[in-house]
Amino acid sequence: MELSKLGEFGLIKKLQKKIPAISAEVLAGIGDDAAVLKVPDKKILVTTDMLIEGVHFDLSFTTFYQLGHKFLAVNISDIFAMGGDPKYFLISIGIPEKCGSDDICELYSGINHIAGKFGISIVGGDTCASKQGLVLSGTLIGNTAGKAITRSGAKAGDGIFITDTIGDSAMGLLLLKGQGSGAKGQKLKAQSLKLIRRHLMPLILPLKDTRKVTSMIDISDGLLADLGHVCDESKTGAVIYKEKIPLSRELRAVAKDLGRDPFEFALKGGEDYALLFTAPANYRTSAHRIGEIIKKGRYIIDGNGIKTRFKAEGYQHFK
Amino acid sequence: MELSKLGEFGLIKKLQKKIPAISAEVLAGIGDDAAVLKVPDKKILVTTDMLIEGVHFDLSFTTFYQLGHKFLAVNISDIFAMGGDPKYFLISIGIPEKCGSDDICELYSGINHIAGKFGISIVGGDTCASKQGLVLSGTLIGNTAGKAITRSGAKAGDGIFITDTIGDSAMGLLLLKGQGSGAKGQKLKAQSLKLIRRHLMPLILPLKDTRKVTSMIDISDGLLADLGHVCDESKTGAVIYKEKIPLSRELRAVAKDLGRDPFEFALKGGEDYALLFTAPANYRTSAHRIGEIIKKGRYIIDGNGIKTRFKAEGYQHFK
Repeated sequence: MELSKLGEFGLIKKLQKKIPAISAEVLAGIGDDAAVLKVPDKKILVTTDMLIEGVHFDLSFTTFYQLGHKFLAVNISDIFAMGGDPKYFLISIGIPEKCGSDDICELYSGINHIAGKFGISIVGGDTCASKQGLVLSGTLIGNTAGKAITRSGAKAGDGIFITDTIGDSAMGLLLLKGQGSGAKGQKLKAQSLKLIRRHLMPLILPLKDTRKVTSMIDISDGLLADLGHVCDESKTGAVIYKEKIPLSRELRAVAKDLGRDPFEFALKGGEDYALLFTAPANYRTSAHRIGEIIKKGRYIIDGNGIKTRFKAEGYQHFK
Repeated sequence: MELSKLGEFGLIKKLQKKIPAISAEVLAGIGDDAAVLKVPDKKILVTTDMLIEGVHFDLSFTTFYQLGHKFLAVNISDIFAMGGDPKYFLISIGIPEKCGSDDICELYSGINHIAGKFGISIVGGDTCASKQGLVLSGTLIGNTAGKAITRSGAKAGDGIFITDTIGDSAMGLLLLKGQGSGAKGQKLKAQSLKLIRRHLMPLILPLKDTRKVTSMIDISDGLLADLGHVCDESKTGAVIYKEKIPLSRELRAVAKDLGRDPFEFALKGGEDYALLFTAPANYRTSAHRIGEIIKKGRYIIDGNGIKTRFKAEGYQHFK
């Protein structure tokens, strides 16, 4: 249905019906000036992320369902990066004329699916027209049972760990843009599709045991950039071993086919949403240990033992 | 300075310096994946508002300072409408190429000024490029000493009150658009400027004593539309006395000069941000009593005692 027939308040009513029953902790939700929320503790975590058409996403690459998934996923990732539990989500959305109410309902389906998976209630937002493209802005509120884990607690001697393979998302984006469309054979095509899917619908998982973790960040700007943020905030240096960085079989295969270095995607590509954390060097974890925090300087050591300095290269707006 | 020289992280550092010392209740603020906030109670209020260039504002009418003021003011108004105290603000901003870092610093000055006035800490956000126009999305977190006041508590027999004159903002917008530029004489010019200022930098004030208040909303969509929201949520009707609606001297004078009915602006114009509330009919208050809640039907009674039905007319996106 066209939004001009439905109107703002008609759309809000329609979306309200799509939103699953919310938790008893929501004392007032959508349909008031502000949401009233019970919080389990006198301490909360809050993060906000904005996604703008033409900058963060391209509607010719993503479905509205996938976009809804990613929109909430990137916010959840920020709460996980603080060692927290996500609880309440607010959705602001600027809708251009070209979008119909079915598109927006699809977007909400994607949001609802991942919200349900992690027990998140949608408690409010703002719905308005956009003369520009589609604009999404989300705010996620969470809490922590223990201490919140910031970027600033890394100490020289700590190990540097990542929770998952990285680089898939950046390669997926390259493939989406058609710059790797030459893939031959069924297997390579399936692998390419998996990488594209990782870009469009990132997998996110919390780190279960964070008791000994000294600092944490999610890899959204790229490994070197995000490790740089930890070093900046912790006032330390870092050394990483290139060959210890975990790469997926799919990334290795597709990069080989394209004659590209897969580590370039892992080091500088963003939007992986794996967690990077530091902990005592002897920390027992299923995460991948890729280096150490040192007092000063930022180095990368390759398979031949050659050490080079690195800069915090990664995605940066305006540059 | 151009943003392309400064980059995203350079801009964030610059803005961080502009933000005044934040309260001790902010355990982690800007510069981490999420803010960590102490809340005085195990209950919070949260509101979010999005402002999009070309829909909500026009950069040829407003300065960046005024825009910053209004951006936070509309969010504060929502917290006041719940009977709450605003505490923490998160700012997401999509910046188009045409804006320089000086513009964004001006915007932050406007935000900081009103934040300081109400003791609000700026604790986080998201800064990104926009290929569309300027996009602002804010989230404000507050708390209430007592019960949060929703839209749904009005009862038949309650009086309907508003805290301030209304209609100024809608007339100010008309004047800004040049549709009332014929104003002659110094006095009328000064009055026009005051109305324009009310549109660009709305005055907002909390209702101090809310103990007997049964429902509340801020007048952002227009009196009839917002009273309609209260009736919808409370499942009641309402009757208002047109001549009891408080109008500013400026609105009366300028409307007369333009040959327009000032009550049209008060009833259907939005963005006044006065508070509309209901309370027992004998409630003692300095606010203006303009009508009563009844069981069913929505009526307006004019100076001649003529009663007509009203619809919830006011601004609605997409229509």
